[in-house]
Amino acid sequence: MTDGIDVDFGDDGLVPAVAQDADSGEVLMLAYVSPAALEATLETGVAHYYSRSRDELWQKGKTSGHTQSIHEVRVDCDADTLLYLVDQEGGACHTGHRSCFYRTVDGEHVGERVFDPEAVYE
Amino acid sequence: MTDGIDVDFGDDGLVPAVAQDADSGEVLMLAYVSPAALEATLETGVAHYYSRSRDELWQKGKTSGHTQSIHEVRVDCDADTLLYLVDQEGGACHTGHRSCFYRTVDGEHVGERVFDPEAVYE
Repeated sequence: MTDGIDVDFGDDGLVPAVAQDADSGEVLMLAYVSPAALEATLETGVAHYYSRSRDELWQKGKTSGHTQSIHEVRVDCDADTLLYLVDQEGGACHTGHRSCFYRTVDGEHVGERVFDPEAVYE
Repeated sequence: MTDGIDVDFGDDGLVPAVAQDADSGEVLMLAYVSPAALEATLETGVAHYYSRSRDELWQKGKTSGHTQSIHEVRVDCDADTLLYLVDQEGGACHTGHRSCFYRTVDGEHVGERVFDPEAVYE
């Protein structure tokens, strides 16, 4: 990444990354990315994140098979947020929805359920 | 919001909010939202955020005129991230681009410039 953007990982060493379906434009999820997660994403072409609760690097879909192939990684103006444009296998959400944003703030269910989480996570 | 989702604002009292163009699906920006910013957004129908650098509630476009009319506010599965579906007036980015994500991580310029920031911010 000689000519690449110098991502500002800040005090906690993490930046938020928005995953968006490269075809449909649907916003799928938001997760956090460490320098090592970004490096793994760019090297493998598959989305990696950093789990703050488990405190570890994490390849999306490693357990469920619901991987995200990377089309492009974008950086925002302040270089402190990433946008992953991806091909999502199955669904992005552990609840079985295509997108984690399957509810309005008013509690209305607007998202599509694409798999049964009990069948995927044992 | 009697039947609404209880947003988890966490230790710092803020959640990240992704703003997405309701028509085109373009991801425009990411900013942070406090409980008061969310309340102002829902009450006025115009996107509000919380500026961490200026430490204040902030109505997007108040200076520039590049406001965001709210179509819908969504919440993710963990209720700790918001998605604002908006009608963006002008451009979302202070650099004059439609979206803050106008560069790839490799430094390629991929976004559309829609206004001259020097003419807007004096």
